Amino acid sequence: MLKNWMPPEKPEKEELKARLKAAQEKLALQQMQLKDRKLPVLVLIEGWGAAGKGSAIGRVIRNIDPRFFKVFSMGAPTEEEQRLPFLYRYFEKIPEAGKFTFLDSGWMDEIMKDRLQGGMSDEVYAQRVDSVKRFERQLTDNGYLVLKFFFNINKKEQAKRIDGLLEDKDTAWRVGRRDVWQNRHYEDCQDAFDRYLTDTNTPSAPWYLVEAKNKKFAELQVMETLCMGIETALHNDKLAVPLLQNAFPLVKMPKLKDVPLDKTISDEEYKSELDRLQAKLRMLHNRLYRKRVPVIMVYEGWDAAGKGGNIKRVTGALDPRGFEVHPIASPEPKEKARHYLWRFWTRLPKTGHIAIFDRSWYGRVMVERLEGFCSENDWQRAFYEMNEFEQELHNWGAVILKFWVHIDSDTQLARFTDRQNTPSKQWKITDEDWRNREKWDEYEMAIDEMLQKTSTTFAPWHILESVDKKYARIKALQIVVDTLEKALD
Amino acid sequence: MLKNWMPPEKPEKEELKARLKAAQEKLALQQMQLKDRKLPVLVLIEGWGAAGKGSAIGRVIRNIDPRFFKVFSMGAPTEEEQRLPFLYRYFEKIPEAGKFTFLDSGWMDEIMKDRLQGGMSDEVYAQRVDSVKRFERQLTDNGYLVLKFFFNINKKEQAKRIDGLLEDKDTAWRVGRRDVWQNRHYEDCQDAFDRYLTDTNTPSAPWYLVEAKNKKFAELQVMETLCMGIETALHNDKLAVPLLQNAFPLVKMPKLKDVPLDKTISDEEYKSELDRLQAKLRMLHNRLYRKRVPVIMVYEGWDAAGKGGNIKRVTGALDPRGFEVHPIASPEPKEKARHYLWRFWTRLPKTGHIAIFDRSWYGRVMVERLEGFCSENDWQRAFYEMNEFEQELHNWGAVILKFWVHIDSDTQLARFTDRQNTPSKQWKITDEDWRNREKWDEYEMAIDEMLQKTSTTFAPWHILESVDKKYARIKALQIVVDTLEKALD
Repeated sequence: MLKNWMPPEKPEKEELKARLKAAQEKLALQQMQLKDRKLPVLVLIEGWGAAGKGSAIGRVIRNIDPRFFKVFSMGAPTEEEQRLPFLYRYFEKIPEAGKFTFLDSGWMDEIMKDRLQGGMSDEVYAQRVDSVKRFERQLTDNGYLVLKFFFNINKKEQAKRIDGLLEDKDTAWRVGRRDVWQNRHYEDCQDAFDRYLTDTNTPSAPWYLVEAKNKKFAELQVMETLCMGIETALHNDKLAVPLLQNAFPLVKMPKLKDVPLDKTISDEEYKSELDRLQAKLRMLHNRLYRKRVPVIMVYEGWDAAGKGGNIKRVTGALDPRGFEVHPIASPEPKEKARHYLWRFWTRLPKTGHIAIFDRSWYGRVMVERLEGFCSENDWQRAFYEMNEFEQELHNWGAVILKFWVHIDSDTQLARFTDRQNTPSKQWKITDEDWRNREKWDEYEMAIDEMLQKTSTTFAPWHILESVDKKYARIKALQIVVDTLEKALD
Repeated sequence: MLKNWMPPEKPEKEELKARLKAAQEKLALQQMQLKDRKLPVLVLIEGWGAAGKGSAIGRVIRNIDPRFFKVFSMGAPTEEEQRLPFLYRYFEKIPEAGKFTFLDSGWMDEIMKDRLQGGMSDEVYAQRVDSVKRFERQLTDNGYLVLKFFFNINKKEQAKRIDGLLEDKDTAWRVGRRDVWQNRHYEDCQDAFDRYLTDTNTPSAPWYLVEAKNKKFAELQVMETLCMGIETALHNDKLAVPLLQNAFPLVKMPKLKDVPLDKTISDEEYKSELDRLQAKLRMLHNRLYRKRVPVIMVYEGWDAAGKGGNIKRVTGALDPRGFEVHPIASPEPKEKARHYLWRFWTRLPKTGHIAIFDRSWYGRVMVERLEGFCSENDWQRAFYEMNEFEQELHNWGAVILKFWVHIDSDTQLARFTDRQNTPSKQWKITDEDWRNREKWDEYEMAIDEMLQKTSTTFAPWHILESVDKKYARIKALQIVVDTLEKALD
């Protein structure tokens, strides 16, 4: 892609000026339309060192109201970021609906650095490319406009710029060791860049090569492509996305109606098992902290099924410095304005830590599906989007545990009534709980579908029979202990 | 993709029956909606030998009115097809708007055969993958629904089926040598298939893996995916497609207004040059016929610029068995109902032959653009779609020559008036010619853009100054001779 490309010629000065002015006026209008239509725009500028990426962003944003954009200059990942999945710091920075994010280098730069100078294997490279393609597709499928630019300069021009910067004390700091290295290994870099650009050039998030020798002309190329991309995206309102196959290794799950709920445990056995398993878990928490294994637990279940009490028995065995419980309610405005997985990406645990989600991303295929908070295309897509998300976490090294805390409808009614009649428990019951209860059958169908489609070998669902809450707690602890022991071996 | 896939489990008999019935009823409705909305559907069924591809197609089409579909069982390319570009026989078979085409194996099968058994190099393989991705994207970008299925069975099942077929004389003929070969080299084939599926799995034309052990279940998987794909496509009416960069090696072209038109040739020189060049061309035609080089010439130009006479001087030197002139008028209904390049793909010359297009695919960015016969998104996309088309032809080995026959507005007026006033020439002038003439300035702008954006190193435009028609004819002949000499060296 890069090597066969013949850069466009710079237009005459007058033409360049006129076209730039036209693009600037257009973008000024488009920013308001973007806001009205709630379209988020992610602009990624990659390219050679000293190609003028930052300066181009500086010129482009002059045409946009400062409330509508953010610019991030991505350096090497911090120590904290290194303890999170590769894509974390990029997902974290995706724009809100109606706004722009500009990235001065991003995931391409990071992969290329590791590939060229960090000895990244072919296998890991292929995995990274897969991750990137999924990431970009998940953004565009969910209504993001993703524009990717590669700023190109030839070897001679790069050398000239590096020398120019080094000559002046005030600019010498801007030349990284990597720029010099790149220039010395220009041909190798070009090969690797070319391969990556070809590998990640997809119809929904294509690459745009920019001839960056002349700054004004580079600005014009970015501006015109930006305007063109926005225009297309504005036109494609309410697009339905072709549904992909849910091609993951799935674990067979029973239907909820076929799960026997008569399982119980005696008080005596409960106490001894609780002590035994919590002691084991305490040990395991230390080990996973030392081994830096991240753990993600998901709790979903019927209202009043006993999620809270169950979680408490797990956290009771954990060092408070090493875990966090995230209660998930309806999204905040900032969260609602972004990709629905954003609020979960930003709550991921560091390596060695445990994150427990009390309700989770699975709301997409339960409440959001049944209450019409998203389109059918959205929740249909969500099954594999969530599998992709969890596979990304699994590839990173995370242990993923998902619990469905299960009771029958009669048990729920009894517990609701008890809550209603017991003053100290009344805060636990709301009108919404009663409304949801009326939709029991619809929920059961949606949950069955969720369990069938998202129970993967790397992130399986476990059903906790919770008519006897104690039984459910011991079962959960046993699964946690078994899973962690296996993962730590 | 294939190797990590865990096939879905076959549902219980009753559920399978019910779901199949639901899908059949849905498809019966959808075929009418497809017809109303003029949506063309291309269904490609690939997979292992003896996986039941043909039988699945047989079951699916039972639900569709025979007027609405065509089935093609693609064997090895015929001798005729081998003298045409790789994609020719697939492009030829794309459906009309509102109809289905089912392909029993297609371009994947052909590539895999050459890769596994024909010693196709890595380089050619990569080129084929590129071609396929472009082909599929050009279809989906132009409103086609492309559904790709891969029928999977394991090694044991394949062996069992082959044995079963061989045992019975009536079915033994259905077992190809390749099926037996595949089974013997199952793991190698699986590796190659997996690689190809991953390489060509794009957001707009994704792969769907089908567990094909059970015929009824395979049918269900195809039916449900088909219904889902059609539903999405019906929803996405009037989609604008993200415009890709026109990343081709371009040749700098002058603006039409800067082309001096005062070039002339004396009658004497014209005659001697005509004789000399035609003699040369005659020789070259023989050589390219023997060397089996295909040649494609495109003539575009202003009305009354002298295209016909120019073409005549070229064909005058050619053996009539080795060339064809294609006058291109407005498309027939069958042509209009398909991708706009279809009527050109189907008119390509065999190797060793010459096709001369009197007007061409460039109508897309001239008359279709200016008369509003296609959307802005359509003609904007056409610049690189045509470059891609020509690159495909170039990679196949074709020599491509494109002429713009140029005159100024005053010369046109003089020739129009002459035609009007000369009874024997009156057939050559129509009201439409006069109407087009009124839009001279708009056309000039569109033509300038076309020349800038589609003059590539592998298929450059040549401007023929045709105020003196004789000068233009000699220039054309000289360019044809020079280009062919270079290509035949």
